[in-house]
Amino acid sequence: MIAFDLSADAARRALAPAGVEEDPDGARERYATVVWCQLIEPGDSVAGRIIAARGPVASLEAVLAGDDLAEVAPKEAAEARKRWLPRLSAATVAESLATASARGVRLVTRADPEWPMQLDDLGAHAPLCLWVRGDASALPRLQASVAIVGARAASHYGDHVARELAAELAGSGIAVVSGGAYGIDGSAHRAALLAGGLTVALLAGGADRAYPAGHTQLIDDVARRGVVVSEVACGSAPTKWRFLQRNRLIAALSAATVVVEAGWRSGSLNTAGHAATLSRPLGAVPGQITSATSAGTHRLIREYGAQCITSADDVRELLGMTGGTDAATAARGTYTGDATRVKDAMSTRVWRDAREIARRAGMVADVVEGILGLLGLDGAVERGVEGWRLARMGG
Amino acid sequence: MIAFDLSADAARRALAPAGVEEDPDGARERYATVVWCQLIEPGDSVAGRIIAARGPVASLEAVLAGDDLAEVAPKEAAEARKRWLPRLSAATVAESLATASARGVRLVTRADPEWPMQLDDLGAHAPLCLWVRGDASALPRLQASVAIVGARAASHYGDHVARELAAELAGSGIAVVSGGAYGIDGSAHRAALLAGGLTVALLAGGADRAYPAGHTQLIDDVARRGVVVSEVACGSAPTKWRFLQRNRLIAALSAATVVVEAGWRSGSLNTAGHAATLSRPLGAVPGQITSATSAGTHRLIREYGAQCITSADDVRELLGMTGGTDAATAARGTYTGDATRVKDAMSTRVWRDAREIARRAGMVADVVEGILGLLGLDGAVERGVEGWRLARMGG
Repeated sequence: MIAFDLSADAARRALAPAGVEEDPDGARERYATVVWCQLIEPGDSVAGRIIAARGPVASLEAVLAGDDLAEVAPKEAAEARKRWLPRLSAATVAESLATASARGVRLVTRADPEWPMQLDDLGAHAPLCLWVRGDASALPRLQASVAIVGARAASHYGDHVARELAAELAGSGIAVVSGGAYGIDGSAHRAALLAGGLTVALLAGGADRAYPAGHTQLIDDVARRGVVVSEVACGSAPTKWRFLQRNRLIAALSAATVVVEAGWRSGSLNTAGHAATLSRPLGAVPGQITSATSAGTHRLIREYGAQCITSADDVRELLGMTGGTDAATAARGTYTGDATRVKDAMSTRVWRDAREIARRAGMVADVVEGILGLLGLDGAVERGVEGWRLARMGG
Repeated sequence: MIAFDLSADAARRALAPAGVEEDPDGARERYATVVWCQLIEPGDSVAGRIIAARGPVASLEAVLAGDDLAEVAPKEAAEARKRWLPRLSAATVAESLATASARGVRLVTRADPEWPMQLDDLGAHAPLCLWVRGDASALPRLQASVAIVGARAASHYGDHVARELAAELAGSGIAVVSGGAYGIDGSAHRAALLAGGLTVALLAGGADRAYPAGHTQLIDDVARRGVVVSEVACGSAPTKWRFLQRNRLIAALSAATVVVEAGWRSGSLNTAGHAATLSRPLGAVPGQITSATSAGTHRLIREYGAQCITSADDVRELLGMTGGTDAATAARGTYTGDATRVKDAMSTRVWRDAREIARRAGMVADVVEGILGLLGLDGAVERGVEGWRLARMGG
């Protein structure tokens, strides 16, 4: 039994710098989530499975008490405890919360309305919480969004294409998600800001610190006019592992991923792989076959079925939209016919997840998810923990 | 009844300049083919159907006699007669044969061992004969061949890529087929010749005349060290229609077609369309999306399922070879790594269709299907009505 104060009072005291009013239970949940966030590395599915079953408080109490963790294999549990417990420190948690508060970084958990549901597609690998600088309310409204990512060492051509695509898409209401890095990422964020559109930067380190340092101004700009997000606590360094896991968040948060330029073994291929795993549409911009910075995008087209992207219209097509300037309207228009099929595949009684609905409707899961999002806005369907169901009329 | 001497003597006299020894029946067939060649335009399927049923002599006699042509609709037959008969002229035939003889152009018909059988895939649209300058014996040996075609107004990049691909492929024993035009075609022929490989030029006009005139030297070089081919008689002009039909021959003669550069409405897309119609593998070289000369190749990749070609190895893969000489063995080798991923995505219990397996494996459905086929040959997987599953060991 390891001593750690998870009481409502302790939780409220710890969360006080953030100034969020919470009921006692809410405060304990939130505090336990922050503690968990400090214990684990992103994508820790052992924690994910336990917390999904018990919630953050009970699962943390069980870990501290040395209880059996039936959700995972005994060996997994033992190894996980060895990973987690050395990191347990109320002081570190308090420090990270103080930094968050000082830097205007807000905690968003599954319990908050700002939580982007699409992250739940990551299952046990989903983040426990997000640390957000900027307009967190934009996060659940990313049905029309595209990740524009690519090589740090981009060519003039790649930067040009990233700018053109991001400007046109962001300017027409499609949020541009990227990783804040040099090269393609930076070009995409910058062009989206210039176009007056929404852009979201997902960082591998804490949301309080700009990485790379040379993008401090850019990331501040994104935070001011868009959103900067990280799943690791403030003060966390951007390690290699966190970069790879950050890539899964980019893919999961966006409705589609487009790689503009990438070397043969570029990290962007990792993002693309996550998009493919999540059945999110994947696009890649071709370039000259003599250019090393296009070797990775051609590989995506050849080996991973990425759609060949030649224009912003092609990206809209990837998103299931067709032309139009108003993204939402366009999406709605596109989906009109399909919405009936989606609703036919749903029940007012049984909750079904999007994949199951897609299977019944004989449609692509991503498209179904987009439609469910729109139907949700219309109040035609409801989302619950187990998926979706038709809203009861007058219910 | 129209008078025209189709006797063996007339045939032998007419064919005499070519110096081919023929039995009387053979001479009549050959002469009738030459006459037909003068009457019709390339791809005339009305002639194709009648001649396929009756042979060139009987069908020509039937047309001259005004007989019923049961193989085609009465209206088609009437219209065809109106197209064909005004062109009937023993003098013109004799003149074209004399030109052929003078310019070293040989007639190759279906009856000759040099006939490339793959042209029969064109069905009723197949050419009746070929007029050949150079090594006709190369024609039936084009199993390993690739059409490298593209824009006349090619960019420096396109010309460079055409040269690199053609040199490497021709140098490794894969014949390079093209259309003798400026731009991509010329670059491909030239590089193949420089590499000491086989190259085949298909002309839209008679094989006796170089078109374009600026490529006289190049086409002469191709004839001396490779093959120059046309389906229209010597002296025929390269009309627009004949260009389009020539494109079908390029596609049909080659084992695969690769478009290196093409504008949005390039004639090369026509060749690509023929390749697709014939179920010949189709590849396209990507380029910068800002380049008008790559708009057509990107279109082929996006809309027509053309494989994205980035190297000579990719062309070999398109041809079903992979580096090695034995295509089947090589294909099996390539798939070794991927076979594991495919098997990982399968179950011994649950049947899954190829698309679902591809999704789970994060691979392209076509590739997965290919691998499933090979694994099926090895008995490692089983196919059922609901898809595929892993074979049970010792089951």
